[in-house]
Amino acid sequence: MRIVVDAMGSDQHPGPDVAGAVQAAREFGEEIILVGDEKRIKTELAQHDTAGLALAVVHAAEVITMTDKPSVASRTKKNSSMHVGLNLVKDGAADAFVSAGNTGGILAVAMLHTLRRIRGIKRPALGVIFPIGSKPMLTDHGANADCRPEFLYQFALMGHVYVERVRGIDRPRIGLISNGEEEGKGNQLIRETIPLLAASGLNYVGNIEPKEFVQGQVDVGVTDGFTGNIILKTAEAVASYMSKTISTEIRAGVLTSVGGLLARPAFDRVRKQLDPDEVGGAPLLGVNGVVIVGHGRSNAYAIKQAVGQARKAVAQQVVDAIKEQMEKQHE
Amino acid sequence: MRIVVDAMGSDQHPGPDVAGAVQAAREFGEEIILVGDEKRIKTELAQHDTAGLALAVVHAAEVITMTDKPSVASRTKKNSSMHVGLNLVKDGAADAFVSAGNTGGILAVAMLHTLRRIRGIKRPALGVIFPIGSKPMLTDHGANADCRPEFLYQFALMGHVYVERVRGIDRPRIGLISNGEEEGKGNQLIRETIPLLAASGLNYVGNIEPKEFVQGQVDVGVTDGFTGNIILKTAEAVASYMSKTISTEIRAGVLTSVGGLLARPAFDRVRKQLDPDEVGGAPLLGVNGVVIVGHGRSNAYAIKQAVGQARKAVAQQVVDAIKEQMEKQHE
Repeated sequence: MRIVVDAMGSDQHPGPDVAGAVQAAREFGEEIILVGDEKRIKTELAQHDTAGLALAVVHAAEVITMTDKPSVASRTKKNSSMHVGLNLVKDGAADAFVSAGNTGGILAVAMLHTLRRIRGIKRPALGVIFPIGSKPMLTDHGANADCRPEFLYQFALMGHVYVERVRGIDRPRIGLISNGEEEGKGNQLIRETIPLLAASGLNYVGNIEPKEFVQGQVDVGVTDGFTGNIILKTAEAVASYMSKTISTEIRAGVLTSVGGLLARPAFDRVRKQLDPDEVGGAPLLGVNGVVIVGHGRSNAYAIKQAVGQARKAVAQQVVDAIKEQMEKQHE
Repeated sequence: MRIVVDAMGSDQHPGPDVAGAVQAAREFGEEIILVGDEKRIKTELAQHDTAGLALAVVHAAEVITMTDKPSVASRTKKNSSMHVGLNLVKDGAADAFVSAGNTGGILAVAMLHTLRRIRGIKRPALGVIFPIGSKPMLTDHGANADCRPEFLYQFALMGHVYVERVRGIDRPRIGLISNGEEEGKGNQLIRETIPLLAASGLNYVGNIEPKEFVQGQVDVGVTDGFTGNIILKTAEAVASYMSKTISTEIRAGVLTSVGGLLARPAFDRVRKQLDPDEVGGAPLLGVNGVVIVGHGRSNAYAIKQAVGQARKAVAQQVVDAIKEQMEKQHE
């Protein structure tokens, strides 16, 4: 298996991206192709012990930066590391693409200029493994701010495939995230999506509120990209707020400070549980190839974990399975 | 000032509702009118020391329950405690209405059958004080799942008035909650609302993400009722998840358990900060009178706090101020 890592992706590129690629090559024993500025990549690689690792470098002359406008950069920077890397996947020279770069840029280059959509898919979705509890999936958290019911229906199908294959959950429970479980709740989009999911043959458990999602009562929470983003960002903000508030209050007294020191291993375990780096990247579902999108602030560990996700998605043939689902739906 | 408390509101009514009304009468020195089943209210009142308190009882023969369908019950149960109580406000016999009952029921009875909308208001909004950090306001968290830009614009105006008057914040900072701060982010509703807010003359600080809202970088976060509900419910779920996870991890070891005991006062302070009961109810903005909606699971303290909110809104003439804003916009 050959996995492309965009060396020019993360905010601090190419350091974390290259270091993560080296870790991944060592841990997974797969070939990693680093794409980007060859000279800078080789300088970085020289800092690592790469003896015996399958690491290749493919040069790309341009970089789509975090401040580039995706619609423009995807058209004009045809030699970007994203174009070059995704074309390797498209041409069969690699099996998956991992990048911690400009999310909109990756989406645009993948969907419009290289891999393109799987036949029948109306809108690819940027799924995300929610970094809390049983780590359920949100179907979209950034690709589609405005959705139609048939998009959400397809997101549910793709989420089903991804979670079943990559996480090994048989007949994953699918919930539609809404502002209440009762009949008649939800906005127009939700109310029109319910009958589609009810008739889908998926293990659809009904409308759920964010509480049920956080508690892990479903394996896939179906959302449009706007709502999914709001959920993920709210969760991250509240978790961070609580951590800070607790540590401020603990430091406010002598006894509580001592207590905090003694309890530190417990806090470390909680922090580890909630660490988004553990999850290591968001799958772009519905394009014709495996694409995993990491946070801009990814460190080497997060990049390595993202490669791990990509590897599972390739091994479990997620793209083929989505194609099969689409053909089944078509019949 | 006379404030109506719906005695048949909370899940455990009339116990918490009556006890909260008694506490409120004592703490605020205002007249409280308990509306509901007279016999049951008087039985409850007999459990309390009410000497010297201004407590009145007005009988209402029917109850809109938590499982009643609001659209039906608001039409058919014309003698409900909600109808009777809200009519007291409508007729000038009381200044405000507080209920921990069926939210949809309160909305329907207030908007369609008793108080009705303030002239010019397209949709009343169920605002909520977010129980975290600097306690900013979300403009809607349940009244309007589907909104048009002009609704959000009016929510911003009403949120401005409420926060300025009731919380005493001069020129409150207004943010539009979106999935990103960059230009071009947001769904169609958000993108169409931006120019309205930018031209509103309010202290509009732009698009914000949930993180900025949680961190208190605005005083009012403008949302439709679906998105606001998702934010509130996600925040509550994550806060509760974290509390439970931390306490499980602390109890998992002897030293960490000791640490947890020593640190308990710090945890208690955090819990108190995040307690939704402190806030005590959500203002229904845009109807022709002061209405505060409490949680179904309100205890006496939460009811008392809700009365406190109602009292401030009456004293600060929030309804008149919203009317003035509407007339100004009309000109």
